[in-house]
Amino acid sequence: MAEETWDVVIVGAGLSGLSAAQTLRKRNGKLRILILEGKERVGGRTVTEELPAAHGVDQWDMGGQWVGSTQTYVMDLIREFGIEVYPQYTEGKKVHHFGGPHAKLRTSSTTDLALSLVGLLDLSLLIWKIDKLTATVSVKNPMRTPNAQQYDSMTLHSYIEKHVWTEEVKQVIGVCSRVMFGMEPNQMSFLYFLMYAAAAGGITCMLETNPGSGQEFRVKGGTQQLSKRLAQQIGGESVRLGQAVVAIWQDAEWAKVTTATQSYLCREVIVTCPPHLAAKIQYYPALPNQREHLTQNMPVGHLIKFIITYQTAFWREKGFSGEIVAQPSAECPLSVTFDGTSPNGSAALVGFISGAQASEWSSREVSQRTAAVVLSLVKYLGEEAAHYIHYEEKDWALEEYSGGCPVNVMAPGLLTYYHPSLRRPCGRIHWAGTETATQWCGYMDGAIQSGQRAALEVLARLCHFTLTQEEMEIAQASQKQNNESTPCGPTPSASHLRRALFITTLTMATAALLAKPQVCRNWIGQAWEVVLQKFATVCGSKPL
Amino acid sequence: MAEETWDVVIVGAGLSGLSAAQTLRKRNGKLRILILEGKERVGGRTVTEELPAAHGVDQWDMGGQWVGSTQTYVMDLIREFGIEVYPQYTEGKKVHHFGGPHAKLRTSSTTDLALSLVGLLDLSLLIWKIDKLTATVSVKNPMRTPNAQQYDSMTLHSYIEKHVWTEEVKQVIGVCSRVMFGMEPNQMSFLYFLMYAAAAGGITCMLETNPGSGQEFRVKGGTQQLSKRLAQQIGGESVRLGQAVVAIWQDAEWAKVTTATQSYLCREVIVTCPPHLAAKIQYYPALPNQREHLTQNMPVGHLIKFIITYQTAFWREKGFSGEIVAQPSAECPLSVTFDGTSPNGSAALVGFISGAQASEWSSREVSQRTAAVVLSLVKYLGEEAAHYIHYEEKDWALEEYSGGCPVNVMAPGLLTYYHPSLRRPCGRIHWAGTETATQWCGYMDGAIQSGQRAALEVLARLCHFTLTQEEMEIAQASQKQNNESTPCGPTPSASHLRRALFITTLTMATAALLAKPQVCRNWIGQAWEVVLQKFATVCGSKPL
Repeated sequence: MAEETWDVVIVGAGLSGLSAAQTLRKRNGKLRILILEGKERVGGRTVTEELPAAHGVDQWDMGGQWVGSTQTYVMDLIREFGIEVYPQYTEGKKVHHFGGPHAKLRTSSTTDLALSLVGLLDLSLLIWKIDKLTATVSVKNPMRTPNAQQYDSMTLHSYIEKHVWTEEVKQVIGVCSRVMFGMEPNQMSFLYFLMYAAAAGGITCMLETNPGSGQEFRVKGGTQQLSKRLAQQIGGESVRLGQAVVAIWQDAEWAKVTTATQSYLCREVIVTCPPHLAAKIQYYPALPNQREHLTQNMPVGHLIKFIITYQTAFWREKGFSGEIVAQPSAECPLSVTFDGTSPNGSAALVGFISGAQASEWSSREVSQRTAAVVLSLVKYLGEEAAHYIHYEEKDWALEEYSGGCPVNVMAPGLLTYYHPSLRRPCGRIHWAGTETATQWCGYMDGAIQSGQRAALEVLARLCHFTLTQEEMEIAQASQKQNNESTPCGPTPSASHLRRALFITTLTMATAALLAKPQVCRNWIGQAWEVVLQKFATVCGSKPL
Repeated sequence: MAEETWDVVIVGAGLSGLSAAQTLRKRNGKLRILILEGKERVGGRTVTEELPAAHGVDQWDMGGQWVGSTQTYVMDLIREFGIEVYPQYTEGKKVHHFGGPHAKLRTSSTTDLALSLVGLLDLSLLIWKIDKLTATVSVKNPMRTPNAQQYDSMTLHSYIEKHVWTEEVKQVIGVCSRVMFGMEPNQMSFLYFLMYAAAAGGITCMLETNPGSGQEFRVKGGTQQLSKRLAQQIGGESVRLGQAVVAIWQDAEWAKVTTATQSYLCREVIVTCPPHLAAKIQYYPALPNQREHLTQNMPVGHLIKFIITYQTAFWREKGFSGEIVAQPSAECPLSVTFDGTSPNGSAALVGFISGAQASEWSSREVSQRTAAVVLSLVKYLGEEAAHYIHYEEKDWALEEYSGGCPVNVMAPGLLTYYHPSLRRPCGRIHWAGTETATQWCGYMDGAIQSGQRAALEVLARLCHFTLTQEEMEIAQASQKQNNESTPCGPTPSASHLRRALFITTLTMATAALLAKPQVCRNWIGQAWEVVLQKFATVCGSKPL
């Protein structure tokens, strides 16, 4: 078969690949751009499905679903297409359950987790410490972070074991890690965790539903429409589905991109698929060893997302927000749920089974998972949870040409040895995808940012006259050794420390009121000693 | 092209694949066996080359080269082919250099490393602790190891930071990790390290050149001849070179193994290539998610091996053994050298550039590496080192269908979540390769053991009548959940503890003789306190 000739071939029709194409097209309408996608649809890790609901059917996102006002790339795209967003429903009590299946259920009506007072103090101190560290991280070049080697040599688990006192808070971090990464805290480098948090503007931004945070808004009509609209704008004939790329060869003149049935010649290639899938492509000449090592060490998380629809949002009526955060157990597969009611008012909950729990539960029958999820919902929200209309789930590990969700992480030792390879082009090949983003890495926003950055790299080579000086610098940054040393990330605020101090005082006062005077005096003395010791550590100049 | 039909297709003609074929052939001469190899040679990570030497040319191993008497599988094969082994030359002073480029060079004439007395004490205690832990590890099912989760959640680096006092010993462990795995201590799970040590019979077995250890003997004529002889015995027509497998499909009746030019139908497949290469093959139906996760988390080490030949073994004449163990630095790329003189008397040194150092040095010109290696040898062994005949190196990261050496390791979190997938067959696909071995995993011996085990699995399915009851159990073990709990590994001996005590006493006595009485008294008091504290920890029942 004769080889087709194009200017740019993009591997992957998710938000990253489509955004790259959009930027290329906007800058130079003459560029001949082809997007090859393995799946039979566009959208990558976003997919919107119609499910049976209270009023017939309605739409839900089975992949990425939340956006936030600080996610400027995705918000710009949403505005461009005139799509509406609406805030995540958060009113009412949140149910939080840590300490094992038989531990006490707690509820909270604030943004704080419902933990014991000591747990809240512990968590506040931890967040304060991590925020302080995050502020020192250079997202563009994590190797320049103070004590980079030390933090990249330990897992998130090792850091937590060293700096967290209470079992509750260790469990909370486990749940956060599972939901944010689909990974256990012992599978990722602590420096990677810090870099990821820094790219999002701080750890609280990743966790919360507040303004500016990652779970602030949902998108009317679902997030997959962003990719569908982009594909439409670029032109359907430029997007070929069911065309998984198996090989990329390059020589002095051309790159040749091969699928199972066809080969395409082009000048530049943008690979946007997740690292573990990019690693499956055959490259000739072979990629630099550092790049190979990188993709061999970036496992993807495991997430099963479920939507369960109801006749009414009974939890709202009972004063619950629909948010459950739980330590999974043999009986309870879920880690987190939120209210997932559609803008049309179709009642639903959205939840996640993730990390080791996803691995454990994925091999069972869907009926078993459904039963266990419903049982957990009954336990946390009441009997009404048993009377659902429809349970739909998506195990992203089983999705071909994804193989996992939400993101690929880095094992220890990667950032300090191989990080420059993450974005550095290999000849005619440029790397995009949310894992290569420097803003909201791992999110839809990061996917778009990385696609646009890769497009600038390509434009710099094919038609540099279309770029401003600033854009040329962005395009060239990935080529360089990434040796700028300016740290970026949020400025640490003292609010968490103040909260911790307040909670400590409250704890002491409560104890003094409740306990016997002598016992109380001893206990307060010991507790203060621990607190003061911790404060001495975090306020000292030593690495945390 | 018409598809050929075979009984068994084996992917990879290294020691593992060829041993599998040998076992199959021996048990059932009628089985039609095909071995497909991507490289243009057999031998996998063993390759023997002719190099310019003192007496014209001579042969050296550029890959795996040492064997030991406890490596029963490889020793049996060596005996079967009537090949001779000879002991590694170890007589004379060893040069050990830790503490940075300007630190004092030390020499040792015993098997001990030339460290300070405190360093020796520290190292002895560490080895004693690790031996004690190793003895509790279940190689076949590491999840059953006491505190498995804890040890799998930390890197080797984190353990060392917690349990080693001296910078010297931290550097020693770094060198060991680099040479044994081609990896830095912060890239691998501590539980994986323990399992690897247990599979070898203890950490000292892996490190030393003593009887029973991993570096006891070398093989006359090189180790690649084992694979060449096996291929000859199996029949040249059964081994096809330059046939890299790109896809394995299976259905109820057949497995279809596809290379770039041909497809083969068969009943059973044995995949023997390293995990990161097995991960590049396209499988249909997709492999279970746990298996995918496993191969995504098992990066291969980076090792550059060099042979440098000389007119005479001048180091022997000067009383050196040729062994150098050094902390690599900007000037010194090497970690370790040994005497590599051939059985014909052609003088040579063999050495390794490994781990992050290999990654750092691999991008430079060979002339730069040669110059730096020679400069280091001059520094450690004298001016004569400058007058070499030939410098030959092999960067295993650049070798196609290897991509690294000596072994793939596991990042934290792997053993406790996904380990059963390591050997568990996926339909008609059986997994071999040294990474799947339960005896001397990572060594040539492990490659053979794993190949033979996979052959038993295939025989159990195709002609179970050829197996004994015991063999049937071995064949079925990989299918099971691996839930046997009997710990295996070496019995910890008290010799290291005794040695530590002896060295402590010696240290005290020397200090008492040299220092002023008052200073000495204080110092001994403090040192004893540390020692006693450490002993209390290691002798206690708490996890180490």
